[in-house]
Amino acid sequence: MMKIKGKTLAELAQMVGGDLIGDPDIFIDSLADLAAAGDGQITFLVKESQSVSLTETKAAAAIVPLAVDSPDKPLIRVKNPYLAAAIIQNHFLQKPFQACSIHPAAHIGDDCHIPAAVSIGPMVSIGDRVKLGERVTIYPGVVIGDNVEIGNDSILFANVTIYHSCTIGKRVQIHSGTVIGADGFGFATDEQGNHLKWPHIGTVQIDDDVDIGANTTIDRGTFGKTHIKKGTRIDNLVAVGHNVRIGENSVVVAQVGIAGSTSLGRNVILGGQVGVKGHIHLDDGVMVAAKSGVHNNQPKGSTIAGIPAIPHKNWLKSSMLIGKLPEMYKDLRDLKHKISQIYKKLFPDRPGV
Amino acid sequence: MMKIKGKTLAELAQMVGGDLIGDPDIFIDSLADLAAAGDGQITFLVKESQSVSLTETKAAAAIVPLAVDSPDKPLIRVKNPYLAAAIIQNHFLQKPFQACSIHPAAHIGDDCHIPAAVSIGPMVSIGDRVKLGERVTIYPGVVIGDNVEIGNDSILFANVTIYHSCTIGKRVQIHSGTVIGADGFGFATDEQGNHLKWPHIGTVQIDDDVDIGANTTIDRGTFGKTHIKKGTRIDNLVAVGHNVRIGENSVVVAQVGIAGSTSLGRNVILGGQVGVKGHIHLDDGVMVAAKSGVHNNQPKGSTIAGIPAIPHKNWLKSSMLIGKLPEMYKDLRDLKHKISQIYKKLFPDRPGV
Amino acid sequence: MMKIKGKTLAELAQMVGGDLIGDPDIFIDSLADLAAAGDGQITFLVKESQSVSLTETKAAAAIVPLAVDSPDKPLIRVKNPYLAAAIIQNHFLQKPFQACSIHPAAHIGDDCHIPAAVSIGPMVSIGDRVKLGERVTIYPGVVIGDNVEIGNDSILFANVTIYHSCTIGKRVQIHSGTVIGADGFGFATDEQGNHLKWPHIGTVQIDDDVDIGANTTIDRGTFGKTHIKKGTRIDNLVAVGHNVRIGENSVVVAQVGIAGSTSLGRNVILGGQVGVKGHIHLDDGVMVAAKSGVHNNQPKGSTIAGIPAIPHKNWLKSSMLIGKLPEMYKDLRDLKHKISQIYKKLFPDRPGV
Repeated sequence: MMKIKGKTLAELAQMVGGDLIGDPDIFIDSLADLAAAGDGQITFLVKESQSVSLTETKAAAAIVPLAVDSPDKPLIRVKNPYLAAAIIQNHFLQKPFQACSIHPAAHIGDDCHIPAAVSIGPMVSIGDRVKLGERVTIYPGVVIGDNVEIGNDSILFANVTIYHSCTIGKRVQIHSGTVIGADGFGFATDEQGNHLKWPHIGTVQIDDDVDIGANTTIDRGTFGKTHIKKGTRIDNLVAVGHNVRIGENSVVVAQVGIAGSTSLGRNVILGGQVGVKGHIHLDDGVMVAAKSGVHNNQPKGSTIAGIPAIPHKNWLKSSMLIGKLPEMYKDLRDLKHKISQIYKKLFPDRPGV
Repeated sequence: MMKIKGKTLAELAQMVGGDLIGDPDIFIDSLADLAAAGDGQITFLVKESQSVSLTETKAAAAIVPLAVDSPDKPLIRVKNPYLAAAIIQNHFLQKPFQACSIHPAAHIGDDCHIPAAVSIGPMVSIGDRVKLGERVTIYPGVVIGDNVEIGNDSILFANVTIYHSCTIGKRVQIHSGTVIGADGFGFATDEQGNHLKWPHIGTVQIDDDVDIGANTTIDRGTFGKTHIKKGTRIDNLVAVGHNVRIGENSVVVAQVGIAGSTSLGRNVILGGQVGVKGHIHLDDGVMVAAKSGVHNNQPKGSTIAGIPAIPHKNWLKSSMLIGKLPEMYKDLRDLKHKISQIYKKLFPDRPGV
Repeated sequence: MMKIKGKTLAELAQMVGGDLIGDPDIFIDSLADLAAAGDGQITFLVKESQSVSLTETKAAAAIVPLAVDSPDKPLIRVKNPYLAAAIIQNHFLQKPFQACSIHPAAHIGDDCHIPAAVSIGPMVSIGDRVKLGERVTIYPGVVIGDNVEIGNDSILFANVTIYHSCTIGKRVQIHSGTVIGADGFGFATDEQGNHLKWPHIGTVQIDDDVDIGANTTIDRGTFGKTHIKKGTRIDNLVAVGHNVRIGENSVVVAQVGIAGSTSLGRNVILGGQVGVKGHIHLDDGVMVAAKSGVHNNQPKGSTIAGIPAIPHKNWLKSSMLIGKLPEMYKDLRDLKHKISQIYKKLFPDRPGV
């Protein structure tokens, strides 16, 4: 296992700025979930309502929300236990980078800049004039085109493809099968309906600390660049079109599609399977519910849902009523009938109402 | 072609438990569809309504539903012709495993257990301490991480990626580009909106006889495992989140997304492009229509559709009425107007109604 | 940069059949977008409304719609500036094919036909009896199965997979991670709910001038073939099922799913994330709005939207009213109440209405 640096409970409490309840000298060497945690392990509760689990868990201690108490379990109380647990888990699992150098069954092009402290697996193909930062890890089967730059401490998992001239920042992680820098979906159509391909001479820029899932595609710009900014998280099977810009710390859940030239602000959240039209802007903090279709610009902080997307509160009420349409339709017919009866009685001189 | 073991019609009828009508000694060496079948071939009708085709097909015989008759075509009558045809087709196409051993342009890590009877193609990369079963086939470009186990008779097609520590059962087939065991989409967000990655220390377990399509992603557990149970079929471009559990013999059609920690029972069917929220349970036999969004637990055997999903029968009626909304809206305005006219006449002393 | 063949403005105007306004001898060596264009470069306006930009751009000349004028900027006026710009851009970026031959770290099977003028990168794996046309480019990590044929001037980008026996036409481009020819999603289910796989003995045929994006999957036929006809454009992460036929010059946007045995006519356009049921036909020129679900045959030239899809004009009105359902529901209840009041007054002898 990956136990690296044990800590006392007091040290862990300090690491996450939490209040320690219990013996400060308990030695903790790893973190586990409620069901699996045992001797020497710390666990965590995300919600106060889980606190009954504290009597059952065999964990040596628990990270808990501020209001939680327990008669006999040592606790670290924090405002955001999920974050505190992630900080502690990252601490325990942190490993010093081990350079494996360049595997002999990798191909490296001409005029590359590759530091000594990197790990490049077998069956990797790296083009010409590629620059890798320090402590970069390239898993087997990765293909990197000419003139690509990759920053320090980044990791490309197996079978990732980076097309020529793209730049990847520091501490970026890109999971297997993801394709960065393929041509955008652009063509001009003549009067006979034939499509002429637009050459894509732009690039892709991925900034520092971006995390990208598996089998995602981020197309290069037609002109200029497609740009994913610092700290953004992109899940699996996402399609990011040419010249899209995504602001800092945004979150794009699996199977989202963002059409060409659309821009997202900071901290935008797109739920799973959302589709966003091209050439629009979703401002900072916009949240879009899963499966929605967004056709228009969205102001800062708006929360939307539906196809086409409307304010989320409205959507919650409206979508619930779709299932009542048959009843509404029947009521309407019934009312029309009754009204015509009434009209006959009240206005006998108005035929045909 | 792949004709291997010809059989008489009598032998084929026995193989599928069908009633033979016609000459039992006709020799059949392969199966083809209605349009293409010719001499020495058997074809099949799925529905009784296709029986007119029997006069046109040049097939030597046909597998048909129980009620079908034909004046001059030898028949095998069965309850489920599609299943019988699949059984016979599998018989004809069954090939003995041919071990090609390990291609010299493959990379094999240290301390692996690899039987003599395997086929490992060029450009394959296998990590350390990997255990392969008998008659495993690994196509070119596949990458297998450390500590992976793969059971007997499984096939990984070209460019599949299996991350470290995952286990794959027997007779599993995984098509090209599929990624098993990438990190789940989990992170904790601090007060400034920065996302801290949750390390994913869980694994993926794929049980026996599972079939997985191309470019699908099945993420590893945050803790514990993501688990696909025996006999389940997963199509292309499906996103299965961390810690998802899918029961036996379930069917997941293309482009479905299943969010983290959700569980599916046995024989669940998810139509194409369905999205399922995280942390819910769809019980045995649940069927979800294509493109639906499922937000809540679903009881055994329920059939649902829509966004959010409602009972399928209700959805059929309700969705048809969405196109009538403009008419309904107009009717409503009209009725409101009429009611106000009536009120004026009947209750002249109630102003402003 | 990729500047290859400079031209005078007069030559460019002639190339696209446009009207030249200004000095015919201005020498242009490349094309750029409005913001980036500078000395020696031509830019383009797609719409008349952008013509204000002409005073700001530093481009030496501009391709513009017929109605646009400019006091001091040399212009080429054309009916379709986007098409004209694409023609000129393709001219500037056209590069003579440079054969790199077969990289020593590629694997080539037996009895292949490979002309001298090809480029095959490292870590490529090509099966037996494969036929490549002239000037074919195979990027690193591509896997090609046995008996595949690829026509002249086609390009397979990195990590593409082509299964055995598929045929690819001339001038086809297939982007990274795409999988051609995996088994379709077909199986027969027995009475116990076990699924028996249908062997897929069909193939895939991709005709000339087809363009396919990244991480798309096109499954092989169960029997017969899956067929993509000349000039069709398919975007990223699209799922094309077994035995699907797509007619000439169709356009399939990202994340579309087309289920097995469905056929599309010529010049069909499917918007992003559309789902199309199996065994139906969309006739020539059908257009389907993004995120729609198509369940039925569609006649020539129809434009549809929604789940299930209805005529687009109807959908535009209907979908806008979904957000008004809460108001409509309230109105209905209100009307029912009023009607019952009226009934009580008008028909006091009909209780319980």
